This record gives sequence, C-alpha cells and structure tokens, in this order.
Amino acid sequence: MLEQIKTIQDLKRLDVKQLPELCADIRAKLIAEVGQSGGHLASNLGVVELTVALHYVFGEDDRIVWDVGHQCYAHKILTSRGENFSSLRSSGGISGFPDCEENEVDTFNTGHAGTAISAALGLAKARDTLGKDYKVVAVVGDGSMTCGMTYEALNNVNDTNMLIILNDNNMSISDNVGSATLNMSKLRVGKYDRNKERLKRFLTAIPLVGKPMYGFLRWCKRRAKLGYVRNSYFDTFDLKYVGIIDGNEVKDLVYYLTKIKNNVSKPTLLHIVTKKGKGYLPAEQDPETYHAVNRAGVDVGLECAQVVSDTLCRLAEERSDVVAVCAAMARATGLDAFKDKFEDRFFDVGIAEEHAVTFAAGLAKGGARPFVAIYSTFLQRSYDQILHDVALQNLPVTFLIDRAGFVGDDGKTHQGLFDLSYLNQIPNIKIWTPSTYSELSQMIETSLNEKGSVAIRYSKCLCNEERHFDGRWKVLRKVENSKLTIFAVGDNMICTALKVADALDGVDVVAVTTVKPLDEQLLNGLQTRNILTLEENVLQGGFGQSVVAYFARNNREISVKCLGVDDQFVKHAKVAEQLLQNGLDFDGVFKVASELLSKA
Amino acid sequence: MLEQIKTIQDLKRLDVKQLPELCADIRAKLIAEVGQSGGHLASNLGVVELTVALHYVFGEDDRIVWDVGHQCYAHKILTSRGENFSSLRSSGGISGFPDCEENEVDTFNTGHAGTAISAALGLAKARDTLGKDYKVVAVVGDGSMTCGMTYEALNNVNDTNMLIILNDNNMSISDNVGSATLNMSKLRVGKYDRNKERLKRFLTAIPLVGKPMYGFLRWCKRRAKLGYVRNSYFDTFDLKYVGIIDGNEVKDLVYYLTKIKNNVSKPTLLHIVTKKGKGYLPAEQDPETYHAVNRAGVDVGLECAQVVSDTLCRLAEERSDVVAVCAAMARATGLDAFKDKFEDRFFDVGIAEEHAVTFAAGLAKGGARPFVAIYSTFLQRSYDQILHDVALQNLPVTFLIDRAGFVGDDGKTHQGLFDLSYLNQIPNIKIWTPSTYSELSQMIETSLNEKGSVAIRYSKCLCNEERHFDGRWKVLRKVENSKLTIFAVGDNMICTALKVADALDGVDVVAVTTVKPLDEQLLNGLQTRNILTLEENVLQGGFGQSVVAYFARNNREISVKCLGVDDQFVKHAKVAEQLLQNGLDFDGVFKVASELLSKA
Repeated sequence: MLEQIKTIQDLKRLDVKQLPELCADIRAKLIAEVGQSGGHLASNLGVVELTVALHYVFGEDDRIVWDVGHQCYAHKILTSRGENFSSLRSSGGISGFPDCEENEVDTFNTGHAGTAISAALGLAKARDTLGKDYKVVAVVGDGSMTCGMTYEALNNVNDTNMLIILNDNNMSISDNVGSATLNMSKLRVGKYDRNKERLKRFLTAIPLVGKPMYGFLRWCKRRAKLGYVRNSYFDTFDLKYVGIIDGNEVKDLVYYLTKIKNNVSKPTLLHIVTKKGKGYLPAEQDPETYHAVNRAGVDVGLECAQVVSDTLCRLAEERSDVVAVCAAMARATGLDAFKDKFEDRFFDVGIAEEHAVTFAAGLAKGGARPFVAIYSTFLQRSYDQILHDVALQNLPVTFLIDRAGFVGDDGKTHQGLFDLSYLNQIPNIKIWTPSTYSELSQMIETSLNEKGSVAIRYSKCLCNEERHFDGRWKVLRKVENSKLTIFAVGDNMICTALKVADALDGVDVVAVTTVKPLDEQLLNGLQTRNILTLEENVLQGGFGQSVVAYFARNNREISVKCLGVDDQFVKHAKVAEQLLQNGLDFDGVFKVASELLSKA
Repeated sequence: MLEQIKTIQDLKRLDVKQLPELCADIRAKLIAEVGQSGGHLASNLGVVELTVALHYVFGEDDRIVWDVGHQCYAHKILTSRGENFSSLRSSGGISGFPDCEENEVDTFNTGHAGTAISAALGLAKARDTLGKDYKVVAVVGDGSMTCGMTYEALNNVNDTNMLIILNDNNMSISDNVGSATLNMSKLRVGKYDRNKERLKRFLTAIPLVGKPMYGFLRWCKRRAKLGYVRNSYFDTFDLKYVGIIDGNEVKDLVYYLTKIKNNVSKPTLLHIVTKKGKGYLPAEQDPETYHAVNRAGVDVGLECAQVVSDTLCRLAEERSDVVAVCAAMARATGLDAFKDKFEDRFFDVGIAEEHAVTFAAGLAKGGARPFVAIYSTFLQRSYDQILHDVALQNLPVTFLIDRAGFVGDDGKTHQGLFDLSYLNQIPNIKIWTPSTYSELSQMIETSLNEKGSVAIRYSKCLCNEERHFDGRWKVLRKVENSKLTIFAVGDNMICTALKVADALDGVDVVAVTTVKPLDEQLLNGLQTRNILTLEENVLQGGFGQSVVAYFARNNREISVKCLGVDDQFVKHAKVAEQLLQNGLDFDGVFKVASELLSKA
C-alpha cells in the first residue's frame, strides 16, 4: 500500500480502516532500510501509527514539531522522501532529523531534546499575532519531560491554542529517571495493555451482546478520556488532559486527534503510550541497544566509552570519593558498568545537562570527586553552568566529553565542533585532548590530582598506540632542518599529519595533548618558523587561534596557518567526507602543507 | 542588639523572644547602609527573619545555599561581615553575592537564578557518599520556580534528605509569569495575612479565654501545616510539603524549622510567604524599583534601556510583526512601555532564558520578527539554543544584549565579558556593537532588514554623539603618517582610545561597529602596520583574536596587540576600577600605545 502513497493527499484519501496496513508497510520499510543505512530504529518503530494519524487528521498547513527529531523517519517517508529513503544519513541524502532546508514540511529543525514545546509555542504565538489560523502540534517524548526547557515552555503555554502530544514509551535513551517522570507514569497503569486485550477477548467471545457491549464500553472509555481524566502534574499548567491512549492503535489515534482538532480551543495534552521498537522483537526487548543502530557492515572496535568504563570503575574501587554523573546516556558514555558496581555513587539525572553540571559542582564542593560524562554537542546546554558554577569556584570536576569533532551521520545538530571554543574562553578550566586510548585512560586518572576542573575531549574512537601523558605536548616526528611543524589535535588529525609528513620533506608533527594551557615551553623552543594547526573544531576561538594569539602576544614572527571548520554548520555524511569537505583530509592538508613548505 | 552579635554562637544564645528585636536592628541597618552603598534592597528586606531563623536553628556545619544569592545581606551581617558592611559591592569590600572566597560560611557561590537546588542536592549526595551528616538547605525564590534548572533539580531530589525553602514573594524581578507559578500560589490565599490579623485581634480581645484560644487555634494550624496540607505541584516530586508559613514571623519560622530539622528525614519543601521590601514602605509599594538601588549620589542619565524602549515602540507602531521577548526583566531591559502598548506582542517568559530563545526561534519561523532582550550574563544560559535553534536555521531574531562588558558592583557572576566570544564562534550570527545611542537605535531598526540573526551588544550607558551606522566601521580619527591604529569596541573603549590618541602623535582611532563580520575592506586598506585592539571581553575568542586571525589567514605582516580581560574572572568594583585592573583605563592603554609607537 505504501507504494500508492506519493503525497499526503493520497494518504488522506484512504479509509481509516486501511491505515493499519499502511503502518505495517512503513514499519517493514523501516526495519529493512534502517537496518542497512543505520539510524535511530527503536524510536521510529514506536511512532509509525502516530505519524500516520497526524498526517491523516491534520492539514498540510498545520505545523507539527517533533521533539528530539530522530523519530521523524515515518514522517519523511510520507512526505515525498520515501523513494530516496535509503540515502538516509548519507552525504547529500536525507537527514536523520527534521530539516527545513531539506523540505519545508519539516516545520522546525530539532535534534537536542526539549525544544519542541518552546518552538511550537512560538509558532502558535506568531500565528495569533499575524492573524493566521493553522494548528500547532508538538510531539514530545517522556524523556524530554526530564528536561528543564520543556518545563519552562509548559509554564508559558497559558491559554495558547495548541496540542502537545506526550509520547510516553517510558524511556529516555536510558531508562527514565526522576520523581516527576515516575509520577507522570502512575497513570500509565502497568497492566494497561494486557487488561485491555483480556477484556476484549472476554466480551467478544460472548455471542450477540458481547461485541456491541465491548463497543459500548470502548465508547464510554473514549468519552471519559476526552473529558474526565485528570493528571495533577499537567493540571499545574492548566492543560486540558486527554489520555491515556494506546499510541500504537492508529484508528484510536485518528478518533482522538479528530475530536481534539475539531472541538478543542484550549491547550491540550494528549498522553499516548507507545512501544519503543514496536514490531521488531529485538528492538522491543532491548530498546537501548536498538535506539540507534550502525550502518550495516560497520564493525565497531574498541570505543572510548569502554576505556572510560574500565578506568572509572578501577578508580572508583580505589577511591570512595569518585562519583559519576550522566544525562540519560549511561551506556553511550561508558557508565553502565559503573552504574552496576557503584549504584550509590552513580547519578543519571535525565536529559538535564544544566542540572547535571551544577549538581556536579555541588558534589565537588561537598568533597566528592565527580566525573560528568556528556557528549560534546549536549554539553553546549551547560555553558553557563560550567562557567558560573564550576569554573568560577574553581571546583574539581572532570568533564568526559565524547563525540567531539565530526560525528558523521547525525549531522549538523549533533556535531562536536564547538567545544574547544566554548571551553577555551572560560577561565580556570583545563582542556585535554587525548588521541590514544592509553592517553585517555591516563588523563582520566591524572585529572583526579587536579585542584580545578578538567575537560577531556575525544571522538568516539581513538587509536591503540601507547603514549604517556605528562601534561606536555608530544613531538611525534622530528626531522633534521625541518621547515614546518604541524600541531594536530586528536587522533584523526594526528594520523593525517603523520601521513602528510611522510609524504613531504621537512615536516615535524606534534600531538597536542592540552589545548589549554598551551605548551608554552614547546612553543618558545620551536625552531621552525612555519606552523600548521589541525583541529576538528570551528576556527573561531579554537586551538589554532590560541596559537596565533600566543605568538602575537609574544611578538614572535612565526607564520601560523589554521585548518578547521570555517564558520559553518556541517551536514550529515561519513566522517571521512566531512573531513574532506572541510579540507581536513589527507589531500587537503597535503596541499596546504606543500604550499607552506614552498614559501618557507 | 545587633551590636552584641559578633558570631553565630552569640545569636544562638539569644532567647527566641529576642529575635524580633534583632530582626528590626538588621532591617534598620540594611535600609541605612544599602541606601548608601547601593545594592539589592527589596529582596534582602524580605528575608531578614528567614536568615535569622535559619542561623538560629541550623548548625554551623550545616549548608545553606541561597538561590540567586542577592538576598544574602542579612546572612553576611550575621556571619562576621557586619562591621565591614558599608564596603558592600566596593572594590576590596564585601561582595553582594555569596562568595566562598570571601568566607567559607557562604557554602556555594550563586548569582544566576535556579542553581540552588542542584547545588544543594550535590552537597547532600556528597554528604551521603562520604558518610557525613550535616543538613542541607536550599532557599529558592518563587521567581526561580519559572526556571527549568529548578525543575530538573526537583525531579532528581527523590529521597535525598534535604530541605527546600520556597520563599514566595510573588515576584521575579518583574511580576511572576506562567501557569505553574500561578497555580503554586493558589495556596497562598489572597487574604491570608489580613484574616490572620483579624482573627488574632478578635480572639485576644475576649477576656480570659481569648488569648489561650488563639494560642490553641494557632497550635492546631501549626500541626496541620506540618502534616496535612498538600500541593499538587510538589506532590509530583514526592516532597513532604509544609506550609504556608508567614516568613516574616521569626518565631513561627523557628518553630517550623526546628520541627523539620529534628523530625524529618525525607525531602521537605517549606513554603513561606514573605513581603519583598518588608519594613521600608517605598520598597513594599514598588518592589521592582527597589529591587536594586543605586549607590547614593549616583545620577543615572539616559540609559540604553530607554533607547531600546523608544525604538522598539516606534517600530512596533509601524510593523505589526514586531514582537518582544524578555526573561523576567521587562523594565530593566527597556520593554515595559512596549508591554503596556503592545500587550499581545510582548512575552515575558519568566526566568527561562533557554525557552525564551527557542520560543523566539519559533516566533521567527512563524513569520513574526522577534527581539529578545536579555542581559549578557544571563544569555549565557541560552548558548545552545542560540546555536541549535536560531543560528542553525538562520532565523531572523534580534538579540538585545544589555550589560555587556564590565558591570561594576555586581561582580564576577554578572560580568558581560564572554558574549563576544560565545557569539563569535556561532555561524550565521552577526554581532553589532554600538557606542552611541543613535547607533543603538539605528542598529535595532537595521536588524529588521536582516535575513538572519543579529546580536546587538552594549553596556548600560553609551554616549550621546550622532553616528550613522551603515555596516562599516567608523574612522573617528585619522592623522597624517599615522603609525598605530586603535580598534575600539564600545563607548568606554572608544573614549579611552580617543584620549590616548590626543595625547600621542601618530595614532588613528577606529570605532568597531561590527565584531562579526569584520570590516575586511577597512582591514585590507589599512596603512599602519601596528594595531591595538581594545574590548571589554575576554581575549580568548574575542574581537582582537579575530583580527589577529584575519591577518594570519591573509599572510599580512601586521603586528596586532590585543587588550581585554586575560582569562580571569573579574570581581566587584566600580567599572572604572575594573578597567584599571585589566589595563583598559587611560594609563594602561596609553602605556601600551606608547610602547607600540616607540617600536614602530
């Protein structure tokens, strides 16, 4: 059936009874194609019915904002990107997140959690201000309910006409945490699904009256859900509450969404329950593993998360003051073993990066030694807390910043290309950049002896070489009469630098292990007059500019050329392609290095 | 009585009946001395009784975290800083905020709203991890209840033994907003105070039985408040709720705090109502004006807020798509006239800077033209939202960033010294830096024609000169055979540059109106080989480094010396003193300029 749906108008022409078949088709496509391309599988399988129902009920001028955005696959398939869907997350292909540049029907770009209600509220207020009359819908996972922004937005909805759909699958990426979230779920009676099925079987088994009676009961329940159920948390915000609805029953969803669309003028919250991974048994049983799957054929070796895991567990054995904090991503950041072994010293705060950092500041102030593990892109949320709560008090907090640099398939909302800059400008914080697993492990351990804060920044994978970290940069290659020194930050850049140095005469290579402070001793003793810096970070405020500024400050006439990302956002593609696009691949660096040598 | 209280031990020796007199003394001291020194008056007057009661009941090893921190004056007076209190907010004197460097009894530095529960929770978890047994108290204003971080922290309290005091004065700095806050206050029955007084007068007027009966009723009410009142919002977090208590009745506070301290092991929220400005009639009647008062004798002339006000109102008359967003500071940012005239196009979102920015992105996406007015230091909270929601979609949002640069008395938590850096590194955003009121006004208007986002960044006051903004930098002084060009950002720096140029031979002065993009045409045509840059911002990632990087990128051998704040936090003092401390006063700049000239 999916093949007949070329446009949303085709979808709208279907009878509601045909929708389950369409959902099955979409689900089959997702399992087949995401299995190949890689991507967010479990969450997308959960919202197939919701996506179909939303497009079936709402008009093309209406605005649907998907929080977090990684559950937009069915939406993309239905809005003219189905045929090209196998290009998902590939260079030049479909983004794995809503992207207005790709198609305006995507309404609002999302990627980080908790932005949807704010954005939708803005769209609704713009509508009211400009005298337009489209509907606005925000679809928000229960994980985003742990997020402060979501609360701030709910607190501002007041009487704005909009619909918020709480897509409740009882998960962030890890399990949900927090008392509000737990209490929100008290409504979600544990045996909900099972009882419903049992009642249906029981009643429909009774001849003659059974089926109509089941229908009548269902009607009663529907009416009740539309009018009488209350929820104390959402009452706080004066939202009309409708729920709980089985969000994997597309006909039910169409019924409720139609009622709400036609009758409701006050802000409404529709609480639905969906099953993450629905329809694909491995994903249903282990949704955290199937949250995001790798591209087929990609064999992932050792990752930094594993090194973090081993090192932190060892340190925690030795020192009882070692504690760990993460924001809804225990496994992804390498903290799940720590969580199991040191339950009382492990804190998953939910998708709440701001709280995570100030909470860690409190832990440090109280004498504990916190490690805060948050991906580079998500730590952007904590800029003020790092500055105002950690750095200003010079507290010993270690940040473990994974997914720094290019992140590949996730694309522009998730790049770790700003951390060197936003950390560099904050006083008191040291920035360390390991390029090997042994360095990472050693840096984690060494940070325990620091009196202030340390940010350790690394990409998903590093290399296996042994390198000893002593706070100094490492000269990896020194030739006679060298004319150019390459300073490289991180494993990718160092590998490229070494290859370029092999291919040219007169090139030294230095592995930059500390972006802040700079290794001034090394800089002062430098014999070459030409420097090339390589970093997976925006140039503005990054490592290279620090070096340029250092020489300017010290009146040293040394020519510094900086390579990095030049003031732009970087779209989804393989990391290798992103490096190439930004002139950071072998050819790009080779070309620049050759030019510098020819002038030297 | 206050004179006899040298230490907290002296306070604890008092009989509870003596406490009201002590409170009266503290209040008198606050009114007298803050009237001279300037500072946050109204909020401090409101919490005198709470501060006395907390120190009376809790031990010196217990930890009290004051959210926002500007209400810590009574605490400072009671903790050995009373004698030196007239040095409040002066260079070398007492900070207007809790400051662990100043005195360890301050527990945790605060300044920005909404951090206290996160920090207190960290202290409590560190206590439990390390096997200590102090009590932890967070004091949070109702304004901070609009703040997402507070919600994130509440959601993580779970069963941690700690006390949260909700100090409810029904205000942020402006009036509170938002449905959650309104509903929180439904408990705070409007006629609460009046009825209590009436009952007391009625009963105590009855001979013999009246007074005991009033006492009995009071006892009943106290018991009830300790056990039976519930609040649906706080129930969400499984907090034991005690309230509402009159927070300006010190004996009541001592009673409840003692009960809670001794008996409660589960997390408790004590809801008190206090009167902002209590005891000083002008402040009681207009707490927004008396939120912060100026140093005596300081005559404030025209401020940027007024220019913003006039300009935005004029533009809103002309264009119906102009909307304005602020975060709990309508008057301070110059939006109160707009609020009165264009009620439907004005949005005060509460102390919710993250939401404010993404909400503005939604407004822009919906076709409205939002102006977001947030102080430089508070906009740090929105770093991720500016990047991920506004810049990534290249949306036309104008940021009006007041209090950029040195802010004087408020000190290190409130300096606007990072914005040039954190904005500079975000693609797609333009940064404009007016130095005169006419430029500010023109820039606000010009930004309406921009397709993307513009950040307009200025200090509290600028100068009155007429300057026309056309997107180019302004050469203010050009001499024959000049040997040095000073690039200055903002009014303070430009004035100093002009004075230095007057005092020396061969110095040109350029007013930098756009930090991003740079005026490349001017840079390329530059005749002097020596540049000095002046900015009220950290050097790292700021304007000067942009210029250095520009010449490095273009292989121009021009010597650039950058002056700004060198990688440190800047304490409270007068702005002139802060400029001097950082070498940005006349003498500092003169000295550097002379050296550069001598080498040129």
